[in-house]
Amino acid sequence: MLPEKPRVAIVGAGAIGGYYGCMLARYGCDVHFLLRSDYDTVMERGFLIRRPEESFTIHPVQGYQKSKDIGPCDLVVVAVKATANRHMQKLVAPLVDGHTLVLSLQNGMGNAEALAEFIPAVQIMAGLCFVCLNRVEPGVIENYMPGRIFIGEFMGSYRERTIEVVNLFERAGVEAYFSRSLNESLWRKLIWNIPFNGLSIAAGGVTTAEIMASEHLTKLAYLLMKEVQAAARAHGQIIPDDFLDFQIEETRKMDAYKPSSMLDFVAGREVEVEAIFGEPLRRGQSKNVVMPRLETLYYLLKGLCPSSEAHPKRKKKA
Amino acid sequence: MLPEKPRVAIVGAGAIGGYYGCMLARYGCDVHFLLRSDYDTVMERGFLIRRPEESFTIHPVQGYQKSKDIGPCDLVVVAVKATANRHMQKLVAPLVDGHTLVLSLQNGMGNAEALAEFIPAVQIMAGLCFVCLNRVEPGVIENYMPGRIFIGEFMGSYRERTIEVVNLFERAGVEAYFSRSLNESLWRKLIWNIPFNGLSIAAGGVTTAEIMASEHLTKLAYLLMKEVQAAARAHGQIIPDDFLDFQIEETRKMDAYKPSSMLDFVAGREVEVEAIFGEPLRRGQSKNVVMPRLETLYYLLKGLCPSSEAHPKRKKKA
Repeated sequence: MLPEKPRVAIVGAGAIGGYYGCMLARYGCDVHFLLRSDYDTVMERGFLIRRPEESFTIHPVQGYQKSKDIGPCDLVVVAVKATANRHMQKLVAPLVDGHTLVLSLQNGMGNAEALAEFIPAVQIMAGLCFVCLNRVEPGVIENYMPGRIFIGEFMGSYRERTIEVVNLFERAGVEAYFSRSLNESLWRKLIWNIPFNGLSIAAGGVTTAEIMASEHLTKLAYLLMKEVQAAARAHGQIIPDDFLDFQIEETRKMDAYKPSSMLDFVAGREVEVEAIFGEPLRRGQSKNVVMPRLETLYYLLKGLCPSSEAHPKRKKKA
Repeated sequence: MLPEKPRVAIVGAGAIGGYYGCMLARYGCDVHFLLRSDYDTVMERGFLIRRPEESFTIHPVQGYQKSKDIGPCDLVVVAVKATANRHMQKLVAPLVDGHTLVLSLQNGMGNAEALAEFIPAVQIMAGLCFVCLNRVEPGVIENYMPGRIFIGEFMGSYRERTIEVVNLFERAGVEAYFSRSLNESLWRKLIWNIPFNGLSIAAGGVTTAEIMASEHLTKLAYLLMKEVQAAARAHGQIIPDDFLDFQIEETRKMDAYKPSSMLDFVAGREVEVEAIFGEPLRRGQSKNVVMPRLETLYYLLKGLCPSSEAHPKRKKKA
């Protein structure tokens, strides 16, 4: 059973890890942050979370540079970029013992699978964050809309502890839901991420507003959504056309949002090309779904964004 | 019958018009250049043509700012960008009487058709230039390889004068061939232009060498070629796979060539999106050829390169 205020480790304190870690810390959990580039700034000034409702600071922060200095926790929140999955075991293993729950809040597909390579599948959960967050400078995270988080079990079947984790986030002020099917949630999230993260890069580093201002890019976004919908269907997840239309309409209402992949691209950082584009493409193709537009986008992004992410094909060759 | 050294007008004295106009002038034709932005420089210093064999200068140049100051010619060479086709009648009509031959040396599809809107089809010819030329500064044109030109009749059927025009270029030192099917030549040229002009922009303003250095972009280039090949087949033009492989191999041997569309894009000039991408896409789709990769590229380019080219659909709406 998860304690009411568990001992938590946050692996990767960017926008997602920093935000949810601070929400849990504010609620009173014993939160330990594994920090890298932001270590000095965060230790000196703490975290500042800017929210439309009310901003808050966490200071002092329990920050660390090595996982073994934190040790085993009740709950480990994994929020590193998927491009860092090849370092996962080194980062996460020291935080886990037989009772630890490990929750991946990463983007794209294949992240829980990367954890399952060295952690028993039964200890793994994953969450999908539908939220607009930007880390605007070291230790400073802006939240533009409260958003939602869908949490589910990697193994699929419902457990009592699933609800305990959902309730923990709820008590900490995060709108959280139990996802009966992580796979369905994941495909639904990709319905948005694939066109908008992808085109924001391929159209030259633009915002969602610039995509929606072009009839051609909007049409292409919709055609990409249809391909993702077909891949999801081949994997047993029925996503109705209404959902696609709703995503387009919601995006039209958004301000000029900068998807995280676009920010990474513009700043010259690694882009999660495999997790967001390559893995869904391969999963669709494995069921003989024709996805030529996603394939075109994926090849273009591979050309535009050199990345060191593990690519299954490359792995086998090496 | 075409005189041995005809009176020639060159409309659009960029790389293509400047180069072939100067070759004809050097041979002794009475060549009149319609100039716009380069008028002052060319009138003062003439044209300098840099070639691997031997460079040469044409000075003084018979340059003009208005077509009506040139008047009717035996041969009019049209070499403006396809994005300027909407001004075609104003530029070309004053140069044409009942005996004039009008030869379009423009990129992409739909150019001869634009001429046919105001000139009898029987007076129209077109040529495909397989050549590497860059206008490096006003009046200075660099030629990297001699190249070839394929000349044919808009109406299709062979005429004695077709060979006269081919022979004129040959006498002027240009390797020229009679094309029995302009359509076939055009589709063959697009087999290269669509992937390499397109990806050089979509992959962020890169050269052919950078495309060939990426396995993903090279694969995408080939998949685009296959779609163009299928569209050509639907229009009765059989282009064998060998031709595609040869184009890939030739491009691999090229230096870091900058396709003209990429130079236009990087310099913020209009890109010939409709002539090179939109029109071939529509012609393929009109025969029910599935071209999702070209469609994706076209939509992306429409988003990346705002252009004022006439778009058939828009025309109807207006």
